Amino acid sequence: MKEQVELHKDSFIEELKDFLKIPSISSLPDRKEDVNRGADWVAESLGKAGMENIEVIQTKGHPIVYGDWLHAENKPTVLIYGHYDVQPEDPLELWETPPFEPVVRDGKIYARGATDDKGQLFLHIKAIELLMKENGTLPVNVKFCIEGEEEVASPNLSPFIRSQEEKLAADAVVISDTTFIEKGQPAICTSLRGALAMEVTVKTANTDLHSGSYGGAVPNSIHALVSLMDSLHDETGKIAVEGFYEGVPEVTEELREEVAQVPFNSEKVKRELGLEAFFGEEGFTFQERVGIRPTLEINGITGGFQGEGLKTIVPNQASAKISCRLVGEQNPQAVFESIQRHLENHKPAGVRIETEQLIQADPVSLDSQDAYIQVAADAYEQVYGVRPLFPKEGGSIPIVEVFASVLKAPVVLMGFGLPSENLHAPNEHFHLENFTKGIETAANYYIRLGNK
Amino acid sequence: MKEQVELHKDSFIEELKDFLKIPSISSLPDRKEDVNRGADWVAESLGKAGMENIEVIQTKGHPIVYGDWLHAENKPTVLIYGHYDVQPEDPLELWETPPFEPVVRDGKIYARGATDDKGQLFLHIKAIELLMKENGTLPVNVKFCIEGEEEVASPNLSPFIRSQEEKLAADAVVISDTTFIEKGQPAICTSLRGALAMEVTVKTANTDLHSGSYGGAVPNSIHALVSLMDSLHDETGKIAVEGFYEGVPEVTEELREEVAQVPFNSEKVKRELGLEAFFGEEGFTFQERVGIRPTLEINGITGGFQGEGLKTIVPNQASAKISCRLVGEQNPQAVFESIQRHLENHKPAGVRIETEQLIQADPVSLDSQDAYIQVAADAYEQVYGVRPLFPKEGGSIPIVEVFASVLKAPVVLMGFGLPSENLHAPNEHFHLENFTKGIETAANYYIRLGNK
Repeated sequence: MKEQVELHKDSFIEELKDFLKIPSISSLPDRKEDVNRGADWVAESLGKAGMENIEVIQTKGHPIVYGDWLHAENKPTVLIYGHYDVQPEDPLELWETPPFEPVVRDGKIYARGATDDKGQLFLHIKAIELLMKENGTLPVNVKFCIEGEEEVASPNLSPFIRSQEEKLAADAVVISDTTFIEKGQPAICTSLRGALAMEVTVKTANTDLHSGSYGGAVPNSIHALVSLMDSLHDETGKIAVEGFYEGVPEVTEELREEVAQVPFNSEKVKRELGLEAFFGEEGFTFQERVGIRPTLEINGITGGFQGEGLKTIVPNQASAKISCRLVGEQNPQAVFESIQRHLENHKPAGVRIETEQLIQADPVSLDSQDAYIQVAADAYEQVYGVRPLFPKEGGSIPIVEVFASVLKAPVVLMGFGLPSENLHAPNEHFHLENFTKGIETAANYYIRLGNK
Repeated sequence: MKEQVELHKDSFIEELKDFLKIPSISSLPDRKEDVNRGADWVAESLGKAGMENIEVIQTKGHPIVYGDWLHAENKPTVLIYGHYDVQPEDPLELWETPPFEPVVRDGKIYARGATDDKGQLFLHIKAIELLMKENGTLPVNVKFCIEGEEEVASPNLSPFIRSQEEKLAADAVVISDTTFIEKGQPAICTSLRGALAMEVTVKTANTDLHSGSYGGAVPNSIHALVSLMDSLHDETGKIAVEGFYEGVPEVTEELREEVAQVPFNSEKVKRELGLEAFFGEEGFTFQERVGIRPTLEINGITGGFQGEGLKTIVPNQASAKISCRLVGEQNPQAVFESIQRHLENHKPAGVRIETEQLIQADPVSLDSQDAYIQVAADAYEQVYGVRPLFPKEGGSIPIVEVFASVLKAPVVLMGFGLPSENLHAPNEHFHLENFTKGIETAANYYIRLGNK
């Protein structure tokens, strides 16, 4: 398989570039047509790989692309999930080359979506295509279910899965949308945090007011917002919202040891990120903070005058976007309501607060000893010469919990990204070595599953 | 004079509309050409009024327009100051009609700059024009000095005045850029607060980070900024910056009584502004807070993701614009440095702070018993039937202190705006009654000065 991948590598990279050129940003209404183009591109690419029953399924939001090949009698059925939508590109000025003009530099392909998730999704399509070309058949039954709304928390895939249980039925769900521990050390993630995101808007007067005529005597929406936002954490980094930690599992010595097994070079990470110091919840390590503890982060804030120079106003409206990562038995809806209560209890006089929920996802935990996960580990080991670790990821892939609970199948999180690949940030990229070895690993995995 | 104003009213309003159509926003570099057009328009209008020696004087920033008429032998010389630049128009979506398409509704003319300061400046040009037309001469010597940088704190007018002391020499400086107490109750302002404005930027990592991979474990620039901004006031509304109140005069019973003379209808103001409650420094009335106390207001805040929906990042940069109103002997530079020190002393670990000064102006106090001010009060009384009050204004006109100290002449702040006219806000307007009566009052004032 290695030789085959080598043979087709250049044309595969060109195809990936075409995929990456499509600005399929699911969160921006203006990009709807581009997201549709992304869906069509995936459908075409599934056809080229030999898939059958290909559909671009319209939803209330962006389309889901389905395709299958079900002629491997008495063999397991694998459902491959991925997403063709990407994060917004801003801040655009920090990109060294434009986000939707992919270029290869130093063995990495740079573009929005390179690692999250177009590159990682595409390697499965190419693995299947090569297997099909080589044998005219596949070692396992395959179903592709590729969505365009992962970056906006999969609002339409979730009901689709629930209503199409039979169509999507599979022995395992394979997803490549996570990362290695570091270059050369593969990982199969066995835990994903849940998520809750919301927007908070503070309103005061019915218009911006002149700061000379009213400043110091009327409520200032930004003053109220910074006070409210600052009240969400205490000075030790703990989240100060009453009820927030309900359902968070106790951190046992055993769990701490498990988390500590994943290597972490504090000085190296600081240097790479240009950080002077880490900061987080007192009494926990970096790995614990991002892996097994819940978090609350302000992702954006805006209010008052935004231009160059100055406008001396008392602004009448300000807002912030907040997202939480949740663990254990934390309930996103309960967390949302506890934050709402906190804000109402802490709001200064003369201020109105509006909240809107943007995202909600349950935490999920997977069994590293499951046979489908162990076979995946074998495939990695054969290609990379190193057995993967089984880390607890800090991120959230809301749909994983739905796949696991509805299809009652193990979910295998075969990541091929690296943590340093700037996902969700400027200069996102994907190491081409992991693109080609990823194709090999995926093909190897499907062959192993067929021989099981 | 009343009949004459009535006769020309409609054409004057059409001319004012032309003036208001020019988007001469001094703070926006993109509007440079429009600001230049504003200067040319003023110069032409001075010519029409019979002024001589008209110049559009280029500066490092926007031009100063000068024109004079100096043939009233043995009569006083009046320098009329105003500004043809305007505030930015945003938030544009809150304007009922476009900011640079002036319309008259219910006896008010709506447009950015209507009351601040194009309408108020233009009424002096028209008063002079009518006097000149009627008599072929003027009762006093007149110098116009009209700038295009008031809304950015007059950086070039200040050195111009200092270097052109002789050219600008006058017995009194007349400025219409303030407001009545309320409709029907004129005011000549006798005190203006000073100003200091700055921008604060907080920086953490070298790029935005994924909140799933890093959230809760690295400094978040928005968390740091909201904490720093919230620390600037205590919960009683007092400014918590050490040294900030240095030079603030003691609030004596006498001063309180003087301030209280200006009527204030708390419920009416609340209703007009759509406010549920006032908020400000404990122990002071609304009038004291906006008239004689210093303030610190956040005018704008920005950081992280600004678009629709969500981007789950730990933002690496966030910033806020702050402006202070200063009183008594407060020194803007000392206040700037005390805020810098406060921010450094309160900054969380792993955070860098950058500060930039945007504006600096000294407070100014004028003598209500000065003859030039008293004659102005007579002129108001004749036209409006009510003698003006002499309030202490909350706003800042940085150049007033420079005129007063360099020219050693009384500054007469003959306001014709109303506090409810949305200056610096959407739907700015100017009551046409005060435009026409303002022309009458100004003409009456110049006649009275000539007879003195």
